[in-house]
Amino acid sequence: MELVEGNKRVAIEGVSPEIDGGRFPAKRIIGDTVTIEADIFADGHDVISVYLLYRKENSTIWTETPMQFLVNDRCRGSFTVGELGSYLYTITAWVDQFKTWCQDLKKRVEAKQTDIEINLLIGAGIIREAAGCASGTDSIQLLKWADSLESEKTKQRDKVKLAMSNEVNKLMEKYADRSSAVTYLKELIISVDREKSRFSTWYEMFPRSCADKPRQHGTFKDCEARLPYISKMGFDVLYLPPIHPIGHTNRKGKNNTVNAENNDPGTPWAIGAREGGHKAINPQLGTLEDFRHLVVKAQEYGIEIAIDIAFQCSPDHPYIKEHPEWFLWRPDGTAQYAENPPKKYQDIYPLNFATENWQELWEELKSVVLFWAEQGVRIFRVDNPHTKPFRFWEWLITEVKKEYPEAIFLAEAFTRPKIMYQLAKLGFSQSYTYFTWRNNKSELTEYLTELTQTEVKDFFRPNFWVNTPDILHEYLQTGGRPAFMARLVLAATLNSSYGIYGPAFELMENVPREKGSEEYLNSEKYEVKHWNIGRKDNLKGFIARVNRIRHENRVLQSNRNLWFNATDNDNLICYSKHLEDLSSIILVIVNLDPHQKQSGWINVPVAAWGLDPERPCRAHDLLKDTIETWQGEWHQLELDPNTYPARIFRFTQDTVTSNAAKELNN
Amino acid sequence: MELVEGNKRVAIEGVSPEIDGGRFPAKRIIGDTVTIEADIFADGHDVISVYLLYRKENSTIWTETPMQFLVNDRCRGSFTVGELGSYLYTITAWVDQFKTWCQDLKKRVEAKQTDIEINLLIGAGIIREAAGCASGTDSIQLLKWADSLESEKTKQRDKVKLAMSNEVNKLMEKYADRSSAVTYLKELIISVDREKSRFSTWYEMFPRSCADKPRQHGTFKDCEARLPYISKMGFDVLYLPPIHPIGHTNRKGKNNTVNAENNDPGTPWAIGAREGGHKAINPQLGTLEDFRHLVVKAQEYGIEIAIDIAFQCSPDHPYIKEHPEWFLWRPDGTAQYAENPPKKYQDIYPLNFATENWQELWEELKSVVLFWAEQGVRIFRVDNPHTKPFRFWEWLITEVKKEYPEAIFLAEAFTRPKIMYQLAKLGFSQSYTYFTWRNNKSELTEYLTELTQTEVKDFFRPNFWVNTPDILHEYLQTGGRPAFMARLVLAATLNSSYGIYGPAFELMENVPREKGSEEYLNSEKYEVKHWNIGRKDNLKGFIARVNRIRHENRVLQSNRNLWFNATDNDNLICYSKHLEDLSSIILVIVNLDPHQKQSGWINVPVAAWGLDPERPCRAHDLLKDTIETWQGEWHQLELDPNTYPARIFRFTQDTVTSNAAKELNN
Repeated sequence: MELVEGNKRVAIEGVSPEIDGGRFPAKRIIGDTVTIEADIFADGHDVISVYLLYRKENSTIWTETPMQFLVNDRCRGSFTVGELGSYLYTITAWVDQFKTWCQDLKKRVEAKQTDIEINLLIGAGIIREAAGCASGTDSIQLLKWADSLESEKTKQRDKVKLAMSNEVNKLMEKYADRSSAVTYLKELIISVDREKSRFSTWYEMFPRSCADKPRQHGTFKDCEARLPYISKMGFDVLYLPPIHPIGHTNRKGKNNTVNAENNDPGTPWAIGAREGGHKAINPQLGTLEDFRHLVVKAQEYGIEIAIDIAFQCSPDHPYIKEHPEWFLWRPDGTAQYAENPPKKYQDIYPLNFATENWQELWEELKSVVLFWAEQGVRIFRVDNPHTKPFRFWEWLITEVKKEYPEAIFLAEAFTRPKIMYQLAKLGFSQSYTYFTWRNNKSELTEYLTELTQTEVKDFFRPNFWVNTPDILHEYLQTGGRPAFMARLVLAATLNSSYGIYGPAFELMENVPREKGSEEYLNSEKYEVKHWNIGRKDNLKGFIARVNRIRHENRVLQSNRNLWFNATDNDNLICYSKHLEDLSSIILVIVNLDPHQKQSGWINVPVAAWGLDPERPCRAHDLLKDTIETWQGEWHQLELDPNTYPARIFRFTQDTVTSNAAKELNN
Repeated sequence: MELVEGNKRVAIEGVSPEIDGGRFPAKRIIGDTVTIEADIFADGHDVISVYLLYRKENSTIWTETPMQFLVNDRCRGSFTVGELGSYLYTITAWVDQFKTWCQDLKKRVEAKQTDIEINLLIGAGIIREAAGCASGTDSIQLLKWADSLESEKTKQRDKVKLAMSNEVNKLMEKYADRSSAVTYLKELIISVDREKSRFSTWYEMFPRSCADKPRQHGTFKDCEARLPYISKMGFDVLYLPPIHPIGHTNRKGKNNTVNAENNDPGTPWAIGAREGGHKAINPQLGTLEDFRHLVVKAQEYGIEIAIDIAFQCSPDHPYIKEHPEWFLWRPDGTAQYAENPPKKYQDIYPLNFATENWQELWEELKSVVLFWAEQGVRIFRVDNPHTKPFRFWEWLITEVKKEYPEAIFLAEAFTRPKIMYQLAKLGFSQSYTYFTWRNNKSELTEYLTELTQTEVKDFFRPNFWVNTPDILHEYLQTGGRPAFMARLVLAATLNSSYGIYGPAFELMENVPREKGSEEYLNSEKYEVKHWNIGRKDNLKGFIARVNRIRHENRVLQSNRNLWFNATDNDNLICYSKHLEDLSSIILVIVNLDPHQKQSGWINVPVAAWGLDPERPCRAHDLLKDTIETWQGEWHQLELDPNTYPARIFRFTQDTVTSNAAKELNN
């Protein structure tokens, strides 16, 4: 073993965040304060100076900020990320001779030692050495201090005072001897996105079902007419299933039957026909011009259009003829369609990502995303990303974000947990989750704890969907209106991003194709629907209220400080979120039983939050808009599914014990 | 982002063991089966082939062994380490085209699809391609199989049978197309030590206190006379505090008084006098020849001599004159002695490890260890390693083990947890622990769980000391004989390595220097003692029995499968260890209250261990040598501190449910 740098005594380890040893970036939102922690220690008891270094990816200059020791050799520092893109950070630390001397002197003084003249001379020597590295007035100042510490004329008390003074310490920090500094081996990355990556409210809608009249094929113009309705409900992302020409060969009929009738429109995910492929518009929806108009019009309503990136082809896609080498061909000369034996999807040909000229294919697919970005789209919902190579997505997202750093990619990967996390790590901004299948209290608590209290929170941004065209959960099938309301409140308040597939959701569509199925009967995937959004029992008013609460309470716009509050009834789930300064506390209680009234005691950890347990709190019910006064840690409630299956309280107390509040968040 | 290797679809992460991202080796014992796990997955549902690669450090050839998938994309493989030194390991994995095709064919057959001729042709093509990479008979065989799959004469049923056959799969595995293989980025290290690194029983003894007669200075010859006594108790390491000449300047007197009397021998840790330093023998103990004789004699009793490596000097150490540059000098021309304000240790000068010619110093210190290795010593108890640079130890231990791979280093670092772990990571074979200060049930349970159930177990080998010359815990001061017995059983059965400082321990010496102190009154550190080991109440018989139990029950020779068993009385701690095949189960119950009888119910998870809960178990009390028959999961016991404050049962049942047993250990 080679003998080098014997003076490097500091160990730096356990850095957080650090995803997979630095292989992947941690994710943050523009304006966030990024907190970095590490275990930092050296042999012995010397004082260590620690600095956090950070820089924007394209800058060569590191900014330094000191890190502070917490307990058990844990160190913490932070910096603010003000721009989109990547920031690099690392840590440097050294055994600080002057600070060690100061600590030692302090101990001696506290132990009332008086024979410290020699120690003061040692300190003078250290300062004199620093002066050698300084220049100008700094150097002169340091030498003056060294003289004072050595002078027989100065009183010992004054020497100690001088050594301990802020000004001496500040200047000594400036000229600290860093020759023994150890810098962490890795430069780690923070990837900074815009706020909508974390806080977004999605509405999925099939444009073809937006026509005014039944049986008529909807257009982008019809979508525009629907914008006020969507906007009033408080959604800020309108996600459209694929808008491209739909294949005719092997087109699927109603309810996924193998042979379509003549007027069946086919599934939008069978992309490509004579009229074009992934860069074309289904003529029945309108023109590219119409689409661009919709994008602009939506912006006026505060809504962004998200499109679907589904990299697969119908048998009629122009790629088949232009690039047969991008597909798998079987020995009988036919193309390999999608299969999951015994299921067959003859209307869809997967692309062969491992084809010999995969570079050409990948470049073409990148150009698809860039094409829609040029039309004004910045949000992409990616269909089944887990069936395409990880490296492809990492490359594609990196490349697109170079040109459009504000781009957002949502991964629709309903697959094994490690694959879902992998996709998030390599660049997807948001991810579909298992939320739809987490319905009881223990399932929800366990899952949300994994998402918000473990390392997962640093790279995986969940988007909670209450339903999708593919998933109508049994809970919604059987729970009636209260189930729809409860699931909406859970999605909207447990998680900062959520979505509904409408108008099926707000119209409480709940009939499955067959018993035991999660598919909708007469699914919109295979036919044009006409939704009576004017129906009197439409949930739109309730949805609007919940979304307004999300917009008015910043604490619901992230998943920080999510607490599960104890209840004595397993049908009642209770949780809360609070801001660090306690300026906003939201407490939510949901009756998970859609059939019966449920009552029970819920725990409100007033003292742990940092509020005064001796004084009453104001509990503002934001759904009913009533105000109650609560006192103490336990509160009894009854939730009637037929009126309010959920309650959302904003909690306040006139003044807060701010020290306790600060501690709470350390 | 560069576009390279688009065909590499496999992700390998979460490799275990992997200490600090591979910066440090994991530790194992010669003959161990090393189990490696990792998360391995690709996009889609294709089958992945995974191989664990390993090699001895000085070999260039990797050995391959397949890894198997468990659940949730977790993969496991293992290899046996047969030699001392370092082994490297890594993982390679690829999407296996043939295995994927087989899985697909199996699904089709199970779904009773009959239109599979095309699929069989595809399979034939894959086999034909493999034939191109093979030669000789293998190639001919593969081509024959491909022909069969293509032949119209072969029945479909036979083709399927052929494709699924072991011989086809075996040969296809041999010629698997690895062009898309992904190899884990890191080569990780397993450091292999001899068995004593994990299983050792230590006895600490001051040679100077071994003389036959009171007030006489003991010698190595006297130590030899003590060997049968130590051996009979079952110890296999005899650790001697420093045996070097002791300084005279500022020598400490009895009970650490500042000024020694004329005949005070000084503390052995004030190393160095006119007679020599770290390579010399204190003439009062004998000669180097005598020491070597002791080492050999001890071996005859199955005992290894461990010496103390304390890198510090008395003011009289030859280094001071020969190498003044290795010490810190104060402005008044005096050397800097050891201090921890307000405490002063004027009899000890620390070495300045960061001295300008540190290389020379470090080399000299290495030569000290090598010198004693040449005298036959292979075990080194290192004094206060946490006050010397981490890099120094990493280098020193690596260098010494190059020549003496069987060397064992025990770190006497009573300091902050992360520093203790760091020293273990960088090479110390064993470590002192906080065991002495963990006395109640929750403290012991929490600490042992950290040591044995977390990543710590892969790099930190605890050595539990019941007492040391510096630590006489209050529990022993006040608990009498039962306390000594209880702590001995805890140390000896909770952990595979433990030690006692004798004869103070077996003679139950329990008087502190003052109330509230953990120091011994009239500590042996500052004076020659005479121990009456012939005393009738000597614990030697009990110690011998406990150590025999350790030797006769392999399950106590490692910390695998340590379980804490529930009890309904906090004064009773109950735990067990079992071998994977259940051939040995040891259950220990200790009454932690040295003053009162304690009784309670203890849980014996018979079914969870894989035994038949319907059948009785044989509980052999190894301390009392009585046999009881236990049935069921709960058992009531009473422990009387005045007879047996602890019970050690060996648990057996005639036959075991071996499947359940296997599952238990997965």
